[in-house]
Amino acid sequence: MQINANFWVEKDGEVVLSRWRVALLQAIDESGSISAAAERMGIPYRRAWDRVHECEERLGLKLIDTQTGGLGGGGAQLTREGTEYVRRFQHFSSGLDELIKDRFREAFEGTDLEKRS
Amino acid sequence: MQINANFWVEKDGEVVLSRWRVALLQAIDESGSISAAAERMGIPYRRAWDRVHECEERLGLKLIDTQTGGLGGGGAQLTREGTEYVRRFQHFSSGLDELIKDRFREAFEGTDLEKRS
Repeated sequence: MQINANFWVEKDGEVVLSRWRVALLQAIDESGSISAAAERMGIPYRRAWDRVHECEERLGLKLIDTQTGGLGGGGAQLTREGTEYVRRFQHFSSGLDELIKDRFREAFEGTDLEKRS
Repeated sequence: MQINANFWVEKDGEVVLSRWRVALLQAIDESGSISAAAERMGIPYRRAWDRVHECEERLGLKLIDTQTGGLGGGGAQLTREGTEYVRRFQHFSSGLDELIKDRFREAFEGTDLEKRS
């Protein structure tokens, strides 16, 4: 048994940031391109592009810088603000994971769920 | 901006309990039948029935008692263990919600996400 958690930020009922979206941004930063990040996340390029641009629109700021063409095709990297948001979200969610595990064990103490967690 | 969280328990990659499944169990308990609970959750009767039985199989215990037929049709209610699991999960997740909001504000302090949360 394993307890899992997802966190996401909504604005007017729409997802602004989530674990998955932050993982996508991080993959773009690590791989240096949207297409490589899309492949790593197992989604089409177009969907990756759309999700990033949705986040940017909903946050009202630029998260990635893209360079088109040139030797080796275009590239992408996080802006200063993109880096900052990814860092903050990662800090927020990873800090909570341990706490959630502890709380879960406490809440289900003495049951099979706790014993098998 | 609003931070949201979902929690779920997995066993061998399959969902055993989640916020949604616990809400379904609670709806069965409150309404006294699977069909009324399904309607409240906006899903077909069959899916509600399947989800409950999946939980029971994966947990290895009975969560609801059903009575078929009789005056007013069949009814359903949580077993003692079902009640216990719902209570524990609710306690676990509602206790975390406030904490997550606080952590989120801390993590995004000084950014637009915090100001608008």
